Amino acid sequence: MANIFSNIPSEIPIEIFQEIISTEKLRVERIVSKGQTSPDTGWYDQDDNEWVIVLSGYGVIEFINGDRFTLNQGDYLNIQAHQKHRVIETSMNEATVWLAIFY
Amino acid sequence: MANIFSNIPSEIPIEIFQEIISTEKLRVERIVSKGQTSPDTGWYDQDDNEWVIVLSGYGVIEFINGDRFTLNQGDYLNIQAHQKHRVIETSMNEATVWLAIFY
Repeated sequence: MANIFSNIPSEIPIEIFQEIISTEKLRVERIVSKGQTSPDTGWYDQDDNEWVIVLSGYGVIEFINGDRFTLNQGDYLNIQAHQKHRVIETSMNEATVWLAIFY
Repeated sequence: MANIFSNIPSEIPIEIFQEIISTEKLRVERIVSKGQTSPDTGWYDQDDNEWVIVLSGYGVIEFINGDRFTLNQGDYLNIQAHQKHRVIETSMNEATVWLAIFY
């Protein structure tokens, strides 16, 4: 047994990506952010579908069509493969813990 | 966008199972319990692996070898296919929200 909120360092200079499940067809990751956003250089354009939920903190996801979603605790979103998106804001004050399912 | 904690009725006479993602290889469910336990008649014996996290409340999972795990908020567990288990307790005082990934 483990806890999704454990082992979060107090300083998070770069986003932390940790694999929880990895099979040929499925990847589950914990992502921990604190103020980070997607690289300025571009959009995520993923081969997999992604289902993502925010478990603490908050994050703002923008899609290439301009739609923006602020995800607070418990909010989740499904991102289809190749639906270009980026994270334009995450909480500066607390760790944002995301659980992402790539499938 | 939706929230994992929304649409929880105040009375939960029977456990609520809701599919969030369903593909040939993956099923993600929200399960909401309030005091329920597994049927007395037996153990869960699943063809799929299950990864489960408690997002509110708590639940106690027992394995057939006698191991017991109390899952509080954020605790997660991986249950291999055919690893017989059951839920022997869930919170009576608040809704226990589980997120389960069957893969």
